[in-house]
Amino acid sequence: MSRPDLLARLAAAQADRAQAALLRRLRTVDAVDGTDIVVAGRRLTGFASNDYLGLAGHPELVEALATAARRWGVGAGAAHLLGGHREEHAALEEALARWTGRARALLFSTGYMANLGVLQAVLARGDLCVQDKLNHACLIDGAHLAGAVLRRYPHADVAAAQRQLDTAPAAPALVASDGVFSMDGDVAPLPALADLCRTHGASLMIDDAHGLGVLGPEGAGSLAEAGLDEAAAPILMATLGKALGVAGAFVAGPAALIEGLVQFARPHVYTTAMPPALAAATRVAVRLAREESWRRQHLAALIAQFRLGAAQRGLALAASRTPIQPVLVGASDAALAAAQALEAAGFFVPAIRPPTVPAGSARLRVTLSAAHRQSDVERLLDALARVLR
Amino acid sequence: MSRPDLLARLAAAQADRAQAALLRRLRTVDAVDGTDIVVAGRRLTGFASNDYLGLAGHPELVEALATAARRWGVGAGAAHLLGGHREEHAALEEALARWTGRARALLFSTGYMANLGVLQAVLARGDLCVQDKLNHACLIDGAHLAGAVLRRYPHADVAAAQRQLDTAPAAPALVASDGVFSMDGDVAPLPALADLCRTHGASLMIDDAHGLGVLGPEGAGSLAEAGLDEAAAPILMATLGKALGVAGAFVAGPAALIEGLVQFARPHVYTTAMPPALAAATRVAVRLAREESWRRQHLAALIAQFRLGAAQRGLALAASRTPIQPVLVGASDAALAAAQALEAAGFFVPAIRPPTVPAGSARLRVTLSAAHRQSDVERLLDALARVLR
Ligand SMILES: Cc1ncc(COP(=O)(O)O)c(C=O)c1O
Ligand SMILES: Cc1ncc(COP(=O)(O)O)c(C=O)c1O
Repeated sequence: MSRPDLLARLAAAQADRAQAALLRRLRTVDAVDGTDIVVAGRRLTGFASNDYLGLAGHPELVEALATAARRWGVGAGAAHLLGGHREEHAALEEALARWTGRARALLFSTGYMANLGVLQAVLARGDLCVQDKLNHACLIDGAHLAGAVLRRYPHADVAAAQRQLDTAPAAPALVASDGVFSMDGDVAPLPALADLCRTHGASLMIDDAHGLGVLGPEGAGSLAEAGLDEAAAPILMATLGKALGVAGAFVAGPAALIEGLVQFARPHVYTTAMPPALAAATRVAVRLAREESWRRQHLAALIAQFRLGAAQRGLALAASRTPIQPVLVGASDAALAAAQALEAAGFFVPAIRPPTVPAGSARLRVTLSAAHRQSDVERLLDALARVLR
Repeated sequence: MSRPDLLARLAAAQADRAQAALLRRLRTVDAVDGTDIVVAGRRLTGFASNDYLGLAGHPELVEALATAARRWGVGAGAAHLLGGHREEHAALEEALARWTGRARALLFSTGYMANLGVLQAVLARGDLCVQDKLNHACLIDGAHLAGAVLRRYPHADVAAAQRQLDTAPAAPALVASDGVFSMDGDVAPLPALADLCRTHGASLMIDDAHGLGVLGPEGAGSLAEAGLDEAAAPILMATLGKALGVAGAFVAGPAALIEGLVQFARPHVYTTAMPPALAAATRVAVRLAREESWRRQHLAALIAQFRLGAAQRGLALAASRTPIQPVLVGASDAALAAAQALEAAGFFVPAIRPPTVPAGSARLRVTLSAAHRQSDVERLLDALARVLR
């Protein structure tokens, strides 16, 4: 047989990555205690989690999960359309729609599936999909899955986005952007994107995975902060596994959008509904995120403290006002070495390397949480300064 | 602007579907009690869940979930590679590898993502992907996402699969099939597919979402039943949200496959790890599924009872020996009317219509569970006979 073997090719690709010192390593966390984690027998202060409000371990979430599981069982047992849609899902969808100021919301099991589902349901083959170059992987994959013509613009460059729209002035078009960029922490130019879409007949989709809970009044997200309602930004996606501390995602928007997703979004139709107990825990998280504004205040103070301290120490910060505070290093091996040195000093901060970020822009991705103390941040700053000197 | 509006087009597509009486309706389940569910204020005996072993509501799973959430919190807070991989995940991966007789296993948050992840990591643009026409939606989507050349063969027709492989005798090739077909319940011709792959230099991938827990020694699945080890069938995917009663999925196979997925499967790399508490509950489910063989025995008895009773009543059964026992109706409106009549008689059995199944093959998808009693099945048979007369 002359046919090349697929698994041998996969192994070769992995060897190439190892050669380039870009291999990923799966580390196992053996215990969790607040923001501390135990890895390889050592207790580290974690600055890697997206649990920005410190809700993942909140006893009220844990008890809501347990109580709901006793009532509903663990798994939903079926897809939403085949009997898997429980009152817990419906109640959470209502709470999320109310919070984000949208007519309706629809749950997905992950943000990855929500983005795929929207793009695959809304876009047809040959439609135009204009995206920021730094958008999350699943927005890119969604455009590919839809068979859309994907055109990417330089990060946050709305004039360039306009030029991409102008390449096909009669094609149905969607502009999609992260609200807060996952590896950079900056906020998209939302009002300008909304204007662009309005004047150019395109629909706007915002992935607010890292904005919900963190930005805007009551943490309603980056669109709420920018005052963009569902007329201006009809497609809002956000996740439940970051600031809300659980797992899953939702899409919120006009009723026609949601009803269309129910009919046509294959990653909603052809998959098991998320466990209702996770929906119950998330509903508690939404309430706490809305009500306990001290979490956002404390987080804002930590962000300010980190940025001031980093500037004083001459660290290379990004233009971010969110809990995602990357420290730019540049070379992949240097970023990896810095992460290892930080680990030796008692901190868990992942090195982010290509292809996750563009070549030459490897970084330490520091994330802050309302569960951190000022002293944690101070210790981290000192360690960063030592390690990156 | 001459650009068509995407959301208006989506609404029009939905109106078309309504016109064709193919609209999907999201029904909310208000309570669950064993196999009974409450919908729209009425208590119905459910024959729709994929909880084949009756584990979803098992108190040991529920307590494992609660205990683990107290220890680990609810959400994992990060992707597996960025600190989200907990000891609970690692322990479950080991248990799944051991059960299925594979070297290693890797968790995904859903079966949808697992299939996308495998196909996208293993296949390159232009590779050949040969699939059964009745494969699950996410295997199809995975081939599209990978940019592979997708060639589908008539259901279970291995000679036709061979002809598809022969269309590109030098191309890297994957043959992918459901182990148990989700809407038909029949088992794929696994030994013949394995032979075909061996003689034609292709890799075999089996999606055993509906076989794991149900078929084979200790419920190890359709491949174990057929005696096909990882040399014969290197890529095994199965889900945790069906017979295991939880949610999520895994891929099992040779270490090189799993290591390649860790590096290259975007739906594993770029997504939040599943909640560790779900992994803990699943580990209990794996133990119960292996040990409590009475569940499979009772299920087999119910399947035999259902098939005998259906034959006696002249119902149109499919060639299935699994808990998926579709009753073929044909026309979509007739299937929907039958489902509604069953509901009026106190049963929840979903009508499955195109495009989920081929045109003209609408059906009632009856699924049986070890949690059903013989009397439930007898009552259902009588109702089916009345409704479909
Ligand atoms: C911007 C963005 N969108 C989507 C996702 C995917 O969400 P999920 O982790 O729920 O799959 C992530 C992170 O994982 C993200 O950072
Ligand atoms: C054959 C098959 N594969 C994959 C899936 C997807 O798995 P999940 O529900 O975990 O997304 C399903 C059902 O949903 C299925 O029936």
